Amino acid sequence: MANSKFEYVKSFEQPDSLLPNTWIVVRVDGRGFTKLCAKYAFKKPNDRRALDLMNAAARVVVTEIPDITIAYGVSDEYSFVFHKSCTLFERRASKLVSTVVSTFTANYIYLWSTYFPETPLSPPLPSFDGRAVCYPSVNNLRDYMSWRQVDCHINNLYNTTFWALIQVEGLDNRAAEELLSGTVSADKNEILFKRCGINYNNELEIYKKGSVVFRDYELVEPGTHNAAEAAEALAEPVQQSKSQAEKEKKKRSKARVVIEHLDIIKDEFWGQRPWLLSNKPGKTPKEP
Amino acid sequence: MANSKFEYVKSFEQPDSLLPNTWIVVRVDGRGFTKLCAKYAFKKPNDRRALDLMNAAARVVVTEIPDITIAYGVSDEYSFVFHKSCTLFERRASKLVSTVVSTFTANYIYLWSTYFPETPLSPPLPSFDGRAVCYPSVNNLRDYMSWRQVDCHINNLYNTTFWALIQVEGLDNRAAEELLSGTVSADKNEILFKRCGINYNNELEIYKKGSVVFRDYELVEPGTHNAAEAAEALAEPVQQSKSQAEKEKKKRSKARVVIEHLDIIKDEFWGQRPWLLSNKPGKTPKEP
Amino acid sequence: MANSKFEYVKSFEQPDSLLPNTWIVVRVDGRGFTKLCAKYAFKKPNDRRALDLMNAAARVVVTEIPDITIAYGVSDEYSFVFHKSCTLFERRASKLVSTVVSTFTANYIYLWSTYFPETPLSPPLPSFDGRAVCYPSVNNLRDYMSWRQVDCHINNLYNTTFWALIQVEGLDNRAAEELLSGTVSADKNEILFKRCGINYNNELEIYKKGSVVFRDYELVEPGTHNAAEAAEALAEPVQQSKSQAEKEKKKRSKARVVIEHLDIIKDEFWGQRPWLLSNKPGKTPKEP
Amino acid sequence: MANSKFEYVKSFEQPDSLLPNTWIVVRVDGRGFTKLCAKYAFKKPNDRRALDLMNAAARVVVTEIPDITIAYGVSDEYSFVFHKSCTLFERRASKLVSTVVSTFTANYIYLWSTYFPETPLSPPLPSFDGRAVCYPSVNNLRDYMSWRQVDCHINNLYNTTFWALIQVEGLDNRAAEELLSGTVSADKNEILFKRCGINYNNELEIYKKGSVVFRDYELVEPGTHNAAEAAEALAEPVQQSKSQAEKEKKKRSKARVVIEHLDIIKDEFWGQRPWLLSNKPGKTPKEP
Repeated sequence: MANSKFEYVKSFEQPDSLLPNTWIVVRVDGRGFTKLCAKYAFKKPNDRRALDLMNAAARVVVTEIPDITIAYGVSDEYSFVFHKSCTLFERRASKLVSTVVSTFTANYIYLWSTYFPETPLSPPLPSFDGRAVCYPSVNNLRDYMSWRQVDCHINNLYNTTFWALIQVEGLDNRAAEELLSGTVSADKNEILFKRCGINYNNELEIYKKGSVVFRDYELVEPGTHNAAEAAEALAEPVQQSKSQAEKEKKKRSKARVVIEHLDIIKDEFWGQRPWLLSNKPGKTPKEP
Repeated sequence: MANSKFEYVKSFEQPDSLLPNTWIVVRVDGRGFTKLCAKYAFKKPNDRRALDLMNAAARVVVTEIPDITIAYGVSDEYSFVFHKSCTLFERRASKLVSTVVSTFTANYIYLWSTYFPETPLSPPLPSFDGRAVCYPSVNNLRDYMSWRQVDCHINNLYNTTFWALIQVEGLDNRAAEELLSGTVSADKNEILFKRCGINYNNELEIYKKGSVVFRDYELVEPGTHNAAEAAEALAEPVQQSKSQAEKEKKKRSKARVVIEHLDIIKDEFWGQRPWLLSNKPGKTPKEP
Repeated sequence: MANSKFEYVKSFEQPDSLLPNTWIVVRVDGRGFTKLCAKYAFKKPNDRRALDLMNAAARVVVTEIPDITIAYGVSDEYSFVFHKSCTLFERRASKLVSTVVSTFTANYIYLWSTYFPETPLSPPLPSFDGRAVCYPSVNNLRDYMSWRQVDCHINNLYNTTFWALIQVEGLDNRAAEELLSGTVSADKNEILFKRCGINYNNELEIYKKGSVVFRDYELVEPGTHNAAEAAEALAEPVQQSKSQAEKEKKKRSKARVVIEHLDIIKDEFWGQRPWLLSNKPGKTPKEP
Repeated sequence: MANSKFEYVKSFEQPDSLLPNTWIVVRVDGRGFTKLCAKYAFKKPNDRRALDLMNAAARVVVTEIPDITIAYGVSDEYSFVFHKSCTLFERRASKLVSTVVSTFTANYIYLWSTYFPETPLSPPLPSFDGRAVCYPSVNNLRDYMSWRQVDCHINNLYNTTFWALIQVEGLDNRAAEELLSGTVSADKNEILFKRCGINYNNELEIYKKGSVVFRDYELVEPGTHNAAEAAEALAEPVQQSKSQAEKEKKKRSKARVVIEHLDIIKDEFWGQRPWLLSNKPGKTPKEP
């Protein structure tokens, strides 16, 4: 029995390949996490277990998809960066987004009991949506990453102060909101310190900076490798020899995928880790 | 601290709203399920537990997303149909696909232990990719559904015969493959019956027809409601009164989401269930 | 000398095929025609020569591109409708739009001196932009056509009254504008009749209805051919025999392309001309 | 009379804005120019009048659309490059393509009689199609331009030799084709020289190199301005002061738009004209 009579419907699928030679960011966002925070009584302003679970799921995504060079997470969102030379799934947006979202979700659900051993999941389950955005230049990409980290800082300073006013000072939500309305960063720092006795600088880096996930190689002296320029010079998908590609693949698979809480806005982070932009694996660090 | 310096990167996100007044099919496909079948020793040609798990996950998706009017699953794939008047997420492809994929994945992982109590999951976890396709007319949509069900039939007849030759007749893979090469349906039916003593007609409907998931209302006399024509006549998203919309929403949420194994190629299925195409909830069936 | 080193740039061209089985409308709009009207002293409220030139250019477009079943023009815009089964240029948006725009522009420039023999063109020349929009159903398409014709009516009634107040009654622009502000159709009809002695009904049909361009065959009795339904039933590009296709092509090429000024909102127009929706050529009308 | 009932059809227009911060190339191609060449008896292998007409039309396009920084033409095609910071028409593909195609076509038709005074146009008229392609980096853009110029060289060498064999040596088409089959550039140069007495080097630059159209400013010492790097560093549409933008606009409008026949593959061309990549107008050259 042939299927040809109906097969014409395949032709209705529209291509959605993303422009070559651009950085692809797939961002995953928690769906309805305000409700979820309440349901599972996440701690305020930050629930360490919830963030560790996000990071653990993200680490699996980065590990399983070597085309991802770096990921950055804050709160219930995670951004995964595919190198601009990436040709995975012919760069089809729906394949890239759905694969990242599915892998992330699967691991979030699977690892839940590790991070919340006393709070079992129940339906409706946590889920995530996703989207892909292309950035043509290294500057655009770094500005995207900076945007997310600045957002992390702004939100965390606000939330830390807001919840301190409630938890330490006993204000109600509305009073805290009113007090903070119109304040700038310096004001919040001062309120936090003077009224609640909290020095924002002493807050945990994971809360202040978010989390960055990447393959770890030996740091280089900043300025010795201009990876950004090298990346820009790359006009087309690299034609490597098979053996070279194989070698890099092996190196990548052996690299440790780490979760750090660093400043990714300044040049230093990128200068010391040229492999993030060049996509050439670095030296494997010596065992400590 | 303002974030305006970096916020321009938001403008790089390209819109991906799907054409209005078209049926949206989001299809979810298992990633690397050949390996997965081996890893968890799925039974051949069909593993009932694996199909029941797929169906259970799909039922949650249909239940949680009322804009889905019908879903059809076979093997490791599931197609979810959004009514052509749907405006969920402004019809953005990435939101629709990622939400379906994430909800499906979350429930697949969560429900795994119910269907495979003695085979715990281990990394790498099952995951799914997804895509969205638009169909302008009821005929296109029904042809899509028919395409999937014919595919189910073709594959199942082949697999049933192939594995019977191996499991009953003791052939090896290659011999079975060669024997079936070039055969048509009638040949396979005969081989199955004559050599393996299996009447294909007696196989389970779930294997022969796949699974169809939908909200269940009272069947109508075919021919009394021309839902297809009504659907075609609908040119724009319906402007309902709030109370009417509220009423339909309530009816939908009370409807039982069923899993059936029916012929969805013939007119009868659609004729008896006009709500699938019209998106107007039917009568709640009497309790048995 | 091989060109392979640079040829990779071809892969950056993104596909832009329009969804199959949808009606494609390519609309052409005059660029900066307000200035152009002033430069060439177009008559107000309507310049018959300018409209005739638009119509003549549109007639060439319809004649040269047989995939266009109907076109509708008003003022400095023209909408060309490609049948939903059309596969010209693999339905690539940029090819369809640019071909229509270029053919239209070429003929507009070429025919200018026929319609404006005493007003030669001078740079900057008239030009047009264009866009393609898909409509999934006959209802959507007819609503699009109705939208343009209602717009024609609204604008023409306003302009006719506005310019009558100026030309007949001697008001200045501002006074005329103020007088018309907030008026409905009935008011304008009355102002026109009572103050300016003009009965709007006696205005030329080309001004009141715009222009519709199509291949002319013998009219049929409305209700005898349900072309809309037939068109909806059509799910995929028709697979005709070569000879049948050849026959239809010949019939189409012999058909006279006419310019009429008819009501295209009511059913009658479409009922009498089933070929517009079915894309099957009708009977060639007898010579008068 | 309100138009609201039908206005919903506007929502079917899909956005088609091109990715920000990428170079946009709009390429215009003659439709059916093989036929046209025969109809108007274009000279072989190159018709100087036809090329001059293409160039004249392209010069108007570049002059009227200041967002175009450079254009390159060969045979019946012309590529127009919009600077990557361009925001014209919100970067909508259909507006950009149709505007370029329409302006080009209008001027081609209008100027025809200047270049072919003794060969009047007759229907069907010359027309052009067009498409837009995005290039993320300066390297991609220059590779695109190089691709077109290499193509010009390859085709022109072939055509010059082919037609010399026919016109000088008296071969027929087939014999010339067979003689050239499998030859490389050096072979063709030799055939041309030895058999036909033609030194390819002495051919006109317009035939060998094609034509490049741009605003002319004073050349700079190559290496003193790294425009490519400056362009890459530009991550977002420049926020200029109004007066600065006004000043640049004036400078651009005063610049002479020239047609040259230069090597655009080597660095020198771009190094001497940093304004092509930086989009900052250079110094107006002194009057000779």
